[in-house]
Amino acid sequence: MAEEKKLVEEITSMEEDFAQWYTDVVKKAELVEYSSVRGCMILRPYGYAIWENIQRQLDAEFKKTGVENVYMPMFIPESLLQKEKDHVEGFAPEVAWVTHGGAEPLQERLCVRPTSETLFCEFYSNIIQSYRDLPKLYNQWCSVVRWEKTTRPFLRSMEFLWQEGHTAHATAEEAQERTIQMLNVYADFCENVLAIPMIKGKKSEKEKFAGAKETYTIEALMHDGKALQSGTSHNFGDGFARAFDIQYTDKNNQLQYVHQTSWGMSTRIIGAIIMVHGDNSGLVLPPKIAPVQIMIIPINQKKEGVLDKAYELKDRLGKDFKVKVDDSDKSPGWKFSEQEMRGIPIRIEIGPKDIQANQAVIVRRDTREKIFVSLDEIESKAAEVLEKMQSDMLERARAHRDAHTYVARNMEEFEQIINEKPGFIKAMWCMDEACENTIKEKTGATSRCMPFEQEHIDDHCVCCGKPAKVMAYWGKAY
Amino acid sequence: MAEEKKLVEEITSMEEDFAQWYTDVVKKAELVEYSSVRGCMILRPYGYAIWENIQRQLDAEFKKTGVENVYMPMFIPESLLQKEKDHVEGFAPEVAWVTHGGAEPLQERLCVRPTSETLFCEFYSNIIQSYRDLPKLYNQWCSVVRWEKTTRPFLRSMEFLWQEGHTAHATAEEAQERTIQMLNVYADFCENVLAIPMIKGKKSEKEKFAGAKETYTIEALMHDGKALQSGTSHNFGDGFARAFDIQYTDKNNQLQYVHQTSWGMSTRIIGAIIMVHGDNSGLVLPPKIAPVQIMIIPINQKKEGVLDKAYELKDRLGKDFKVKVDDSDKSPGWKFSEQEMRGIPIRIEIGPKDIQANQAVIVRRDTREKIFVSLDEIESKAAEVLEKMQSDMLERARAHRDAHTYVARNMEEFEQIINEKPGFIKAMWCMDEACENTIKEKTGATSRCMPFEQEHIDDHCVCCGKPAKVMAYWGKAY
Repeated sequence: MAEEKKLVEEITSMEEDFAQWYTDVVKKAELVEYSSVRGCMILRPYGYAIWENIQRQLDAEFKKTGVENVYMPMFIPESLLQKEKDHVEGFAPEVAWVTHGGAEPLQERLCVRPTSETLFCEFYSNIIQSYRDLPKLYNQWCSVVRWEKTTRPFLRSMEFLWQEGHTAHATAEEAQERTIQMLNVYADFCENVLAIPMIKGKKSEKEKFAGAKETYTIEALMHDGKALQSGTSHNFGDGFARAFDIQYTDKNNQLQYVHQTSWGMSTRIIGAIIMVHGDNSGLVLPPKIAPVQIMIIPINQKKEGVLDKAYELKDRLGKDFKVKVDDSDKSPGWKFSEQEMRGIPIRIEIGPKDIQANQAVIVRRDTREKIFVSLDEIESKAAEVLEKMQSDMLERARAHRDAHTYVARNMEEFEQIINEKPGFIKAMWCMDEACENTIKEKTGATSRCMPFEQEHIDDHCVCCGKPAKVMAYWGKAY
Repeated sequence: MAEEKKLVEEITSMEEDFAQWYTDVVKKAELVEYSSVRGCMILRPYGYAIWENIQRQLDAEFKKTGVENVYMPMFIPESLLQKEKDHVEGFAPEVAWVTHGGAEPLQERLCVRPTSETLFCEFYSNIIQSYRDLPKLYNQWCSVVRWEKTTRPFLRSMEFLWQEGHTAHATAEEAQERTIQMLNVYADFCENVLAIPMIKGKKSEKEKFAGAKETYTIEALMHDGKALQSGTSHNFGDGFARAFDIQYTDKNNQLQYVHQTSWGMSTRIIGAIIMVHGDNSGLVLPPKIAPVQIMIIPINQKKEGVLDKAYELKDRLGKDFKVKVDDSDKSPGWKFSEQEMRGIPIRIEIGPKDIQANQAVIVRRDTREKIFVSLDEIESKAAEVLEKMQSDMLERARAHRDAHTYVARNMEEFEQIINEKPGFIKAMWCMDEACENTIKEKTGATSRCMPFEQEHIDDHCVCCGKPAKVMAYWGKAY
């Protein structure tokens, strides 16, 4: 038992120190390793496999809406980055600059893409001529670089993997529709696949993307009550089109500017999976995203017939699920603790007595519930348990979020909540940036979004008391 | 007909100017677009879709051999790059250097990875302790940067997409086995999926990878008689392990250095597909790699029932194949020429008369053979034609290569062949680098490889006349 306890003992409990718990889980579950490149992380096989699953499923959803993948250069010439004024102001302070190729200094510096709006705009200005060329619905999977001072695995790193969709449309209406459509793709994916409920809404002027007309966001609540922006979708209007001269000839032979959108989701979402579902034994992965869904752990595996039965179960279950057998020479208890640390949704314990009784034990990772099942119906039972776990995880996350969503009518209430009960705060707002700044200063909370689902909490702004225009979600955020 | 001819007329014939034909095809088939970033290309949806198909199939082959995917940082600190002497000498002259993060100069320059041996070595030195940790079989899909002077789409660009596998093993034998195993994975993939036959062999000392003990290669012959190195697999021995101190404790509790390999294939292989299979009407894609395998082209599509029948065929064929209907308002002839330019393996023509006769016409892209088939058996006929086309393409490429493979016994013969009959030259060699240099100087040809399948052509080196040690393939190369 001493050995069994070791792996769990090595991680800090989340109640004691949530940040340390996070770091411990990320490391012990072997998602990430640090490198000597400051602020850049190595995605280890288990962490990368989660990303591959996200990528495959999200990519399929994109393609259903007509999106095609492309690949753009990773460098942006300085002059190109500077073409849209707000955009360059937002990004120039945090880009990596390439100044030399081999031994020779470059005539013009190149930045490593922090995002690729400028490249897509240049591309679109070359390939769009007529209304027949529209819409363009392109996406790319790549890595981007932002020169961050402080970094944390998945949540904020200098280089991170993401996808960035960039579309061009004939009309403003179509661009707006696409912006919301992709936000919904993200929200549905998070709820249905990652079991994370999202608040959908619009960002304030202060929080919107550099160069966007409107930024929409999905916001999730982590276990510690902090918010995490999990995906964004921007409507650019024709701002970039004017800066980059992207025009098309319409049906009446008139030149028109296109209307554009962009939308992105990154490896940051893996941080959300960890912080929404994890517990003090480690990761808990929703079945639909887990690289291994079932770990079969033989008990007394040296007894004749046990390993054979375990492999037989693997073959049977392997038709529908991603299954592994842990046939290493570690003790069962150690194997349990590893399977738990890695968040593998269910384990199946099978030993000589079980075989004799024609049964096995299914143990759910989230509830630790033990379910005795007949070997004859193990496929259907495993399917049932995995499905139940997936939906329970979503409901649990939703219940946690709802229980940690508060209402504030004035700054006194606001500050009390922030200090005592971390979570989302719903509060009315006059939409003046000064109030956002005051709230941030006094409480550390930022406006997360103005949700699509509005409620009328009060007539007055929570901060200045002037007439309120909107209800917003507020919170401390990652 | 004037319109129909236009698309084809826009490309140069390959007999007239092969290089221009290549550039025209790449552009007109919409594989690639140029960007304002010198030497970097944009992979358009059709070009990227080919890469996605390569990636998916090759990745599955890797995983069958136990390989797992990871993601490493895109930057390498200068001091890390310098750890292995031969390696840094080979790569330092062609890397892009990042010197500033935002407004601040970096304390140490970072290069954008030209290849990731050094990062993997550092990673392995951190995570490998015991023989139980071996082997490590990791791969990553990413882009790399090499500061090239002259660039051509797919064949040589400053940034290109590839995969790089990096493995660490307990013994030299195991590393050598893995090196050859991955070379075979590449060769089999090229033959079975891309319909490109490969010569497998070992690179000379002069041509091997910077830091490798041995480099193995697969070499293909393009339509113009030039060779293309299509994939390489390197055995590093324990050279990198010594430079990076990657040691493990063996079963006898002794410290040992690991033995390593690396192997890569890049978007360059798309250049090979174009130059092996293409013709004067454009691309010809092997069915197994084509993003669209069947284009249904309705004839007289405004006649009642024609488009409906086309969609019905699409639904039926779509169960097994990637199918599109070209229902645009272009003329059938123009649609044919677009389908041909894009190398879509077969088109199905269907018009009112065909429908009446319960038939359709299948036209093969490679041979232009027209096959009248009953609509009742269109699925099985399409499958048959695609399969036949796939195997015919390989046989045709093999016949072309064999017909353009020559034997030279002395430099007179060698030079005559190079000047008159471009292709592979098989010739004996003393293995002295001086002869390689002489041959290069006199003819422009380089040693492509020392093939696994050796033949005894002569006793003497083709260049110096001294006793020969090996038969090598020689040729001008991309």
